[in-house]
Amino acid sequence: MMDIPLNIWTMFAAAQRHYFDVEIVTSFPDDSRHRYPYGQFAARAQQLMHALDSLGLADDAVVGSLAWNGFRHLEAYFGVPGSGRVLHTLNLRLSPTELATVIDHGGDVAILVDPDLVPLLEQARALGGLRDVTHVIVLDDHTPEANLPGLVAYEPLIAGQVTSYPRTPWAESRPLGICHTSGTTGRPKGVVYTHRSTVLHALGVASGAGFALGPSDCVLPIVPMFHGNAWGVPYAATMVGAKQVFAAGPFTAQRVISLLRDEQVTVAAGVPTIWIDVAGQLHGPRPLPDLRHIVSGGAQPPSSLIARYRKDFGIPILQAWGMTETSPLASVAWPKHHLRGLPDEEFIEQAASQAGLPVPTVDLSIRDGDGAEVVWDGEQLGDLYVRGPWVADSYLHGDGVEQFTGGWFRTGDVAVGSPGGYFRIADRTKDLIKSGGEWISSVDMEAALMAHPDVVEAAVIAIPDPKWLERPLACVVPGENAVPTLDQLHEHLTAHGFARWQLPDRVEFLDQIPRTSVGKFDKKALRARFPA
Amino acid sequence: MMDIPLNIWTMFAAAQRHYFDVEIVTSFPDDSRHRYPYGQFAARAQQLMHALDSLGLADDAVVGSLAWNGFRHLEAYFGVPGSGRVLHTLNLRLSPTELATVIDHGGDVAILVDPDLVPLLEQARALGGLRDVTHVIVLDDHTPEANLPGLVAYEPLIAGQVTSYPRTPWAESRPLGICHTSGTTGRPKGVVYTHRSTVLHALGVASGAGFALGPSDCVLPIVPMFHGNAWGVPYAATMVGAKQVFAAGPFTAQRVISLLRDEQVTVAAGVPTIWIDVAGQLHGPRPLPDLRHIVSGGAQPPSSLIARYRKDFGIPILQAWGMTETSPLASVAWPKHHLRGLPDEEFIEQAASQAGLPVPTVDLSIRDGDGAEVVWDGEQLGDLYVRGPWVADSYLHGDGVEQFTGGWFRTGDVAVGSPGGYFRIADRTKDLIKSGGEWISSVDMEAALMAHPDVVEAAVIAIPDPKWLERPLACVVPGENAVPTLDQLHEHLTAHGFARWQLPDRVEFLDQIPRTSVGKFDKKALRARFPA
Repeated sequence: MMDIPLNIWTMFAAAQRHYFDVEIVTSFPDDSRHRYPYGQFAARAQQLMHALDSLGLADDAVVGSLAWNGFRHLEAYFGVPGSGRVLHTLNLRLSPTELATVIDHGGDVAILVDPDLVPLLEQARALGGLRDVTHVIVLDDHTPEANLPGLVAYEPLIAGQVTSYPRTPWAESRPLGICHTSGTTGRPKGVVYTHRSTVLHALGVASGAGFALGPSDCVLPIVPMFHGNAWGVPYAATMVGAKQVFAAGPFTAQRVISLLRDEQVTVAAGVPTIWIDVAGQLHGPRPLPDLRHIVSGGAQPPSSLIARYRKDFGIPILQAWGMTETSPLASVAWPKHHLRGLPDEEFIEQAASQAGLPVPTVDLSIRDGDGAEVVWDGEQLGDLYVRGPWVADSYLHGDGVEQFTGGWFRTGDVAVGSPGGYFRIADRTKDLIKSGGEWISSVDMEAALMAHPDVVEAAVIAIPDPKWLERPLACVVPGENAVPTLDQLHEHLTAHGFARWQLPDRVEFLDQIPRTSVGKFDKKALRARFPA
Repeated sequence: MMDIPLNIWTMFAAAQRHYFDVEIVTSFPDDSRHRYPYGQFAARAQQLMHALDSLGLADDAVVGSLAWNGFRHLEAYFGVPGSGRVLHTLNLRLSPTELATVIDHGGDVAILVDPDLVPLLEQARALGGLRDVTHVIVLDDHTPEANLPGLVAYEPLIAGQVTSYPRTPWAESRPLGICHTSGTTGRPKGVVYTHRSTVLHALGVASGAGFALGPSDCVLPIVPMFHGNAWGVPYAATMVGAKQVFAAGPFTAQRVISLLRDEQVTVAAGVPTIWIDVAGQLHGPRPLPDLRHIVSGGAQPPSSLIARYRKDFGIPILQAWGMTETSPLASVAWPKHHLRGLPDEEFIEQAASQAGLPVPTVDLSIRDGDGAEVVWDGEQLGDLYVRGPWVADSYLHGDGVEQFTGGWFRTGDVAVGSPGGYFRIADRTKDLIKSGGEWISSVDMEAALMAHPDVVEAAVIAIPDPKWLERPLACVVPGENAVPTLDQLHEHLTAHGFARWQLPDRVEFLDQIPRTSVGKFDKKALRARFPA
């Protein structure tokens, strides 16, 4: 068989030859839209390759991107690694201090930045960061006033360049990208993606056990390109020639719905809170007839949400799981063939409780404290380990070596294997509540609480307790109509199978649950706010 | 990223861990069915690995399989390469002489054989073949009387073995399988698949740009496991945990329909003639509500067939193309997103004339006699070249080196690229008709003829002509109701855009078109029958 290296070009070549007439749409906060075909995208990405050469950057230079979702960011996804360089996606929700740390930790020598994020980059530099950065490329027609090195505007920079670039046979093991973890559990750590891992991951995402993407699809990733490669969607979608829709900047449920409808989106991906917001503004039995399925990840979607979409809108919600360290997609909870026909209630219970089947080539292992595999009985909790060709074997600069052991990555998640062969994340190891020697899963309790009609969002944390060591505290965002009492919540949790000793002793009502830079519930912040 | 070799185990591990409860169904000619779950399949495949060890076969031995589609053949697909050995699928439609040649050319030392095919194997041996074969394993409970070396029955052989086998990290470049070409263009040549090529091909088949297979699917490959790996379906389906249905032995349209219906098949694959037969026995607007799409390959499906399934049954037919040398899947003609909504007639014309978009990581090139890329204008014919990580870079024992050039495989097909980025096979190089210095595509004319209401099947060959060098001869199987006249066919072809000089001077009516061992029109036989 031919020795063809799996590199960025194997995902890019068809864009120009076969998919040149397929659209890429970028929606802006004012709901205006930029649209162009793959042919133009491919030409501009190759102009970017030449432009990076023209700046004199080493061919293995790390190039940061501080940008919203959009067509220029997509050009960088291919243009930076196409020329051999490494794309370091930067989380635009970091503080200037964190951003400076991450940029210098990655070794960035150039940064592509959206115009509205230039001030953030300036602040990071003013704090002593960007020490290796020689070029800042503003993703616009012109440069703003800014105290940044080598400031140049993207459009004039690429405008004069040749629109084709030699297809270089980059080695599979060559670094292609870097992403830092969101650092909910400590200092951000860098994960280095290779050409090989990115191609294999894209094949996994495009597979029917992933997001099932093909040329007939139009995909809207409502997840940031600045973190976890937007779940790999931009690479997978480009590889198969799917129409792509990006929502730049902050967005509203209404903008998401407009895009889903106008662009005839067939597959969308995002965190559960998006789908809760969207559901609030959908009406009628088949409000989005083109949408084949929604992929929901980042947190466990409440069963009420899965039920709403299935029964009211006829749209399946598929639960996905992954981490920065797993590229990120590791599992998707497709119903097996024989489960498709279950009655609604059973199907929904199954979908809500069985969170994942591994994407092909990924292996999972759930282990007890002694490292032995736990029984997959739907009860026993264990530490989740993962292994696969797109799973990290180390962090940048040798950080966190303790998480890699015996060829496996220890995720820091606590999981349960079901008798049906699915697994489910019970908690982050550090979010488990240890009460009287027994464990309580905060994730399970949150899911149950969010199924209550008067609860919009819920996060459960541990607070210290002299007798039981730890006890659960429920932080709840009530609905508009009524605020549930603690007794009502107890009754509700009991009906959902929680034992008396597991029930939270206290509930705190909040306007919103604080979130991390990638939109997850920020339990670190909640613990700081409710120390006892 | 972890250095996990892409080998058979990366497609097999989840069968036991996650998909143990998914069914594998084998239908026999009497319409009885064998069914068992993946868990049992995985245990038995590992017993087979131990059994092959127990016979003392070298760990890189070539093991032939002469078998119909079915669960034991599937066990061999994993059990033979799982233990490091090489599975050589043998075409059961070969003559004893051809079979003997192919077995010895592959270097087979053991052969797995279905009971009803034992006599064929005996004949091949009686002709002096099987010279390296030391073991013949009959896929049954017991052995028949037969003059074959090391005769042993499969069931008792594996029965006592351990049901788990160590996951060996076989290298990616290790041979996994061998398949011989069907030899329509000369002596059969051997193609060697590696562990890497097979895993990547399975990911391509499972992708949304391939057959789009996932855990929710039930797949029925009506293509032989003895040739072209049943289009890679058994590997891809096992990898993603899809329910699998196999039809052993010869089958009828009625048996296919029963399987599609009873087993709730979602994806089926087969040659166009199967779908013509099946269409004849389907009734009602949605006769197969579970069937998401049909993949049709091996020959161009007539537009009338695509229209029938789309308009009458609501089932999309997707055209696929590939060769033994391309593992075999190289392209599938998914409609791009913006083409989905075309009116029926336009859609069908598009689907019938635009035969393919390459599966991810595969590259195509259409070249003129000087090796320059032809213009993709829907008109210009050229030689089709293909390249990719699951495309052969050589034949076994160094045969046919002239087909590999500059990192590409020259397919021997003549193709046309369309302005829309699709390509279409116009003909086999040797089936093109050169009349008066101009080329006539036999494939195009066949497709047009088969669109005539009174034509069931049509094959067009060249016959020598003193003036024009070659002229087309139409071989036609007429419908039951009427036999069309030559004039009527001329009128019909003219309406389909054929020029006067292209029209066949003669038509021969046949009861059936002769077929090759893999079910394609056997033009070699037609040319022998109609030399002038």
